[in-house]
Amino acid sequence: MILTVTLNTALDITHRVRALRLHTTHRVTEVIQRPGGKGLNVARVLAALGHEVTVTGFVGGGTGRAVQEGLARTPGIVDALVPVAGATRRTIAVVDATGDTTQLNEPGPLIAPAEWSAFQEAYEVLLRSASAVALCGSLPPGVPVGAYAGLIRTARTLAVPVLLDTSGEPLRRGVAARPDVVKPNTEELAELTGSHEPSRATRDARRRGAQAVVASLGPDGLLAHTPEGHWRATPPRRFRGNPTGAGDAVVAGLLSGLVEHLPWPDRLTRATALSAATVLAPTAGEFDHRAYDELRTQVAVTGEVSAA
Amino acid sequence: MILTVTLNTALDITHRVRALRLHTTHRVTEVIQRPGGKGLNVARVLAALGHEVTVTGFVGGGTGRAVQEGLARTPGIVDALVPVAGATRRTIAVVDATGDTTQLNEPGPLIAPAEWSAFQEAYEVLLRSASAVALCGSLPPGVPVGAYAGLIRTARTLAVPVLLDTSGEPLRRGVAARPDVVKPNTEELAELTGSHEPSRATRDARRRGAQAVVASLGPDGLLAHTPEGHWRATPPRRFRGNPTGAGDAVVAGLLSGLVEHLPWPDRLTRATALSAATVLAPTAGEFDHRAYDELRTQVAVTGEVSAA
Repeated sequence: MILTVTLNTALDITHRVRALRLHTTHRVTEVIQRPGGKGLNVARVLAALGHEVTVTGFVGGGTGRAVQEGLARTPGIVDALVPVAGATRRTIAVVDATGDTTQLNEPGPLIAPAEWSAFQEAYEVLLRSASAVALCGSLPPGVPVGAYAGLIRTARTLAVPVLLDTSGEPLRRGVAARPDVVKPNTEELAELTGSHEPSRATRDARRRGAQAVVASLGPDGLLAHTPEGHWRATPPRRFRGNPTGAGDAVVAGLLSGLVEHLPWPDRLTRATALSAATVLAPTAGEFDHRAYDELRTQVAVTGEVSAA
Repeated sequence: MILTVTLNTALDITHRVRALRLHTTHRVTEVIQRPGGKGLNVARVLAALGHEVTVTGFVGGGTGRAVQEGLARTPGIVDALVPVAGATRRTIAVVDATGDTTQLNEPGPLIAPAEWSAFQEAYEVLLRSASAVALCGSLPPGVPVGAYAGLIRTARTLAVPVLLDTSGEPLRRGVAARPDVVKPNTEELAELTGSHEPSRATRDARRRGAQAVVASLGPDGLLAHTPEGHWRATPPRRFRGNPTGAGDAVVAGLLSGLVEHLPWPDRLTRATALSAATVLAPTAGEFDHRAYDELRTQVAVTGEVSAA
């Protein structure tokens, strides 16, 4: 199975309102809620692609129960979340008639040292049956900033390929622990390297320790620097839609391609097509299966294989 | 005991953010949540005043469990909420550094006919040990618009004094069922009677069936037309603060005065002081006990007793 780690899981709530106006009262016309946090989104895409997925991370409180009830209704995902005393955070996406989103993200529960230890033990057990692991998203309060670096070292010790998708200091420390893949967006890459030139920044991120760096360029596709070569994957055109979950679809594409031992250009094609198909889907974070099938044949990959 | 009915209970969530800006993403710096819906707020004030209170209404889902856990932590309140299949609604109050609030109110669960019947049976049993009952707030989807009229008739049959605090068509129909007290604000009163002149509108609301009408004039106090006379209660000055829960404090003041058989002027003094002490409290919906004790001696009541 593929393991995804979401230390800061969330109950993602979407509120539809007619027109959001500051300092007034609104009747919410539609409420949608589902399990959230990057690693859970990645798991949903992996499960839809037919992979066996196990999710872990922290879960607690009434919001946590709602997350677990949602996961139980999703075929193909095994719930191995670790219970904590605090409550799983909520994220609220307020969507108005313009289609634009005003987002409120709660910080997440305070994780006690004993809870963090319990997670690390559970993680090590899960890794023993994992073909790959993705470490995704922000850290809840109480988890040490070097958490991902430690989790990467554990995965490397057990020879499980590890992908890291986070930002800021957790990314900086994680990269130094030599993960197999990191997937920053251009902003995260610039913050890590100080360079706003994607190709230079991607190379620089590799020098900092990541074995492969796949930079997400938003609607312009992906840029990858890997031990096997470097490539640029470009969708057939720029798509308009809801970009929520597009980055998580990239992670799912890369990870599924990794465990299927696809060559890098095929992984990048899959990741790019999944990402665009997510932007095109009417529901945030889902991907449009028909669009994915079409786009897979239309992504252009250019680049070159490294000298052996 | 005093019974309060909240058919559309809520999990009230307060999100503090630095500055709310449309169509951007916000980190919530503080999350507060507690049981909400007008009748639960009234019960909290009554319990703080030393009364035995039982709350009923509908509750369901993970949000409902959070409401019930919150009630269990509140001394003096007995939980007699009726379980339903749907989930209790959330309300989200986003408070930014200006102190102003942007409010999002979910509509509430769809109540099935069998659930509405189950509630009516439970309500009748509870009334048999109630000294008074307050019917508070909006109706969730599925509950008939004449619901409060029916609940008022049941209370009158059992000779339990009944206070109604709602708006729109449920208020209009409820008034016609001759409740002992209605407590509209000026907006609700104008909607009911078509008159924006509070004294005229208050008299008109009595003619429509309510035995006593106490109109809440916001920071200007209360206006009461009752079988015993008519009065105006005025706080010593206009208070600035958070008006959330001020109307529920008025209901608690009136109801506690009713079961203690206080004369109307004393009930109005208590309700006005509680309302102002709620506006002054730092936490929305709580009242400042010291301010309440001071204000009780400072409220001015003018008016006259009806000819016998």
